[in-house]
Amino acid sequence: MQPIGVFDSGVGGLTVVRELIRQLPDEDIVYFGDTARLPYGTKSKETVIRFSIENILFLLKHKVKLICIACNTSSSVALPTIKSYFKVPIVGVIAPGVREAVSATRNKCIGVIGTKGTIQSRAYEIQIRQLDPKIKVVSCACPLFVPLVEEGWLKGEVVLKVAKNYLKPIKDARADTLILGCTHYPLLKPLIKTLMTDRVTLIDSAKQVAVEVKKILTHEGMLKRKKNKAKLKFYVTDNPNWFSVLAERFLGKPLKDVRRVNV
Amino acid sequence: MQPIGVFDSGVGGLTVVRELIRQLPDEDIVYFGDTARLPYGTKSKETVIRFSIENILFLLKHKVKLICIACNTSSSVALPTIKSYFKVPIVGVIAPGVREAVSATRNKCIGVIGTKGTIQSRAYEIQIRQLDPKIKVVSCACPLFVPLVEEGWLKGEVVLKVAKNYLKPIKDARADTLILGCTHYPLLKPLIKTLMTDRVTLIDSAKQVAVEVKKILTHEGMLKRKKNKAKLKFYVTDNPNWFSVLAERFLGKPLKDVRRVNV
Repeated sequence: MQPIGVFDSGVGGLTVVRELIRQLPDEDIVYFGDTARLPYGTKSKETVIRFSIENILFLLKHKVKLICIACNTSSSVALPTIKSYFKVPIVGVIAPGVREAVSATRNKCIGVIGTKGTIQSRAYEIQIRQLDPKIKVVSCACPLFVPLVEEGWLKGEVVLKVAKNYLKPIKDARADTLILGCTHYPLLKPLIKTLMTDRVTLIDSAKQVAVEVKKILTHEGMLKRKKNKAKLKFYVTDNPNWFSVLAERFLGKPLKDVRRVNV
Repeated sequence: MQPIGVFDSGVGGLTVVRELIRQLPDEDIVYFGDTARLPYGTKSKETVIRFSIENILFLLKHKVKLICIACNTSSSVALPTIKSYFKVPIVGVIAPGVREAVSATRNKCIGVIGTKGTIQSRAYEIQIRQLDPKIKVVSCACPLFVPLVEEGWLKGEVVLKVAKNYLKPIKDARADTLILGCTHYPLLKPLIKTLMTDRVTLIDSAKQVAVEVKKILTHEGMLKRKKNKAKLKFYVTDNPNWFSVLAERFLGKPLKDVRRVNV
């Protein structure tokens, strides 16, 4: 039976893998992290599209039955263009996050934070408006959050100051729902919660992505039938050891058997 | 007559180009910035070596007579391994910076700041000790400096706090000379000067690199003879427009005719 393919620019997509394992424990998963070329969030649309296509072709070689783009930048910037290129079903992280946020907001004001690429694409804004044109959307790029998280600076004066700066327009607009539009940001949840107060619902799309994957596999009759132990394979384009160490922060458990590949 | 080839992971290497233009105004230059795969400073040795070889092969297609690696990470991590692979003379930024620092220090204590890759390689430390084993070297990786500079956060509370944190061990050791071991850091000079006081000499190797290039070309009889206008060509792997905008910060003048290529 074929595995589910997941790719991200790096390690953050493992938050989606964690939810897939929780909701679909029998499924085999192939994860691809493009760690040699990360980050995607500061790169141009053309480059993110090129990288995304290469990553999908890599996963197709592993005979995946569905591809999950766990990277917000790639989902925002590349997915609308490349979705029609491939036969395999491709699930991004934008639509599931949007659905959750739209059903969560009471005052019809949603904040969105993400990389430069994600925010410039206006993907969240466009999809929110398609569901409910009355909703006000306030979007802010937070380019320093990824390096801060990767350095492990999750609390303290520096990240607090940076976050205050970035989140001000969203606080000022009194958004009651905030989409964490980057797989790194859930690690900053405690800090963001303190700044935004409990009044604000934080949305990270990993759970909803797994719900969507399950729905598609069920609908298409593609759920794994054999109840043997699920196989998890991890491929990265840079050092596997560095990935394994960071992975623990995202997946909640240590990883073994990570392989380096070129695409 | 053949051009000088220069490569960097991105835009920072233009500080070296600026010095080459100043000291060798007749020479043609081909610049290659690997903006689609930057940064190099957080990537593994194997990956930096692979990227560096690909960049050199790209420059060789443009028939360069000498290659200047303007990237500190690549000079530290890749150059020692790959120098012997190629016939073309290759100049890195480490040795010239080291020579300047060793002749500048009075109290025999030199600080070095750079990316994780540069600092972990211990390239500066090793080369300083080769020139003078009595010199004490204090090295600190400053991984947040590159994203801060690229965001244009060159002053203010956040970058001050980050810099204080990074520079503390070097201040505590009372180094009288500080090597800015990354092409992004010269943009933080005013801030670093404030923190380190005027007592400390800041070394950025661009000038000395151009001196070394001139010396080699003179010695090998490879200086350009025709006194026609120098041709400057710029190639990048990501969006040329974004590069042109950032380039102005480093080169001091706007760039036209930047082309995108894949390697």
